[in-house]
Amino acid sequence: MQFFSPALTRVVEAFRRLPGIGPKTASRLAFYILTMKKEEVEEMAAALVEARRKIRECRRCRNLTEEELCSICRDARRDASLLCVVQDPRDIIVIEKTAQYRGHYFVLHGALSPLDGVGPEELKLDLLLKHLQNGGIAEVIIATNPNVEGDATAHYIAESARRLGLRITRIGFGLPVGGDLEYADELTMSRALEARREI
Amino acid sequence: MQFFSPALTRVVEAFRRLPGIGPKTASRLAFYILTMKKEEVEEMAAALVEARRKIRECRRCRNLTEEELCSICRDARRDASLLCVVQDPRDIIVIEKTAQYRGHYFVLHGALSPLDGVGPEELKLDLLLKHLQNGGIAEVIIATNPNVEGDATAHYIAESARRLGLRITRIGFGLPVGGDLEYADELTMSRALEARREI
Repeated sequence: MQFFSPALTRVVEAFRRLPGIGPKTASRLAFYILTMKKEEVEEMAAALVEARRKIRECRRCRNLTEEELCSICRDARRDASLLCVVQDPRDIIVIEKTAQYRGHYFVLHGALSPLDGVGPEELKLDLLLKHLQNGGIAEVIIATNPNVEGDATAHYIAESARRLGLRITRIGFGLPVGGDLEYADELTMSRALEARREI
Repeated sequence: MQFFSPALTRVVEAFRRLPGIGPKTASRLAFYILTMKKEEVEEMAAALVEARRKIRECRRCRNLTEEELCSICRDARRDASLLCVVQDPRDIIVIEKTAQYRGHYFVLHGALSPLDGVGPEELKLDLLLKHLQNGGIAEVIIATNPNVEGDATAHYIAESARRLGLRITRIGFGLPVGGDLEYADELTMSRALEARREI
């Protein structure tokens, strides 16, 4: 027999399509929807559709925006000589929260991963190189993730940018602040040793 | 500065309203929505609205249904002399999966919890008692959760039903199948000892 009614099954299946949502969570969320106010559910549904319809990539830096240029690219007070390359739009938020970086960004929306069919075209590295060639940029800070794909992407971009005579840096790796040496994995520890500095 | 665009913020907030979804998960889900096909997002939104609009409580047993009576209440092959009382519609699915129970259900949509303002009226225990008084029911199986609220609810229902001369049972408690004695908490262990049987 069918345990859920057809309408409920459709909601469970919709939630299951989301990343990290298993069958149990999907049915918990679906049942919760039934307890919400009708207007709340309609508001939620409208928000999903509207976001998907309105939000697109910034023409310049591929950050997410509802305009042609994102709020960072539109901000004339930002330092246009610094460009930070990140994998994901959410990485921008992490960096912005430090309030330490005032340059521009470029979002790759991924990292090089030939086995998954992600090459330089998918990351639109040609658009990135065009920015670098246009001049005005003094330093490229590569903030891809510290893993195999992120490392490969960083090296690829560094090679291309070096030919243009730009300063290329990558964010530092080591022990996280508040972290405990005892629980550090050997790769982090090895990176932390490499990154040691005189004090 | 505002990190998310207004449309994205609305989606993040919508997801945050769901139970068990924290800020990190909400933003992960919101970003995923942006990567979905437009039609998929519209389909998902429509499913939410439709489920909330169509699904209601079965007039008889308070199970969720899109009709006036749920599929179990409509099924003439079910044993009308057995009534199983559960807290949540999902509990029905757990019991149905055993394929061992062929009676009817009554869904409380909660458990007695005076501190949270949940009394007999909220659980519509009058509707349950009306069923019991109507006759035809030989046994009431109480399958509320094994915790303080579930126990209190079970006792309350048992008292009311006993006056009608019905057989009242409660599902068994003890070690879960596949469970390990070593990891059993003392309450489960104590219930398991109480529930011991000759072999």
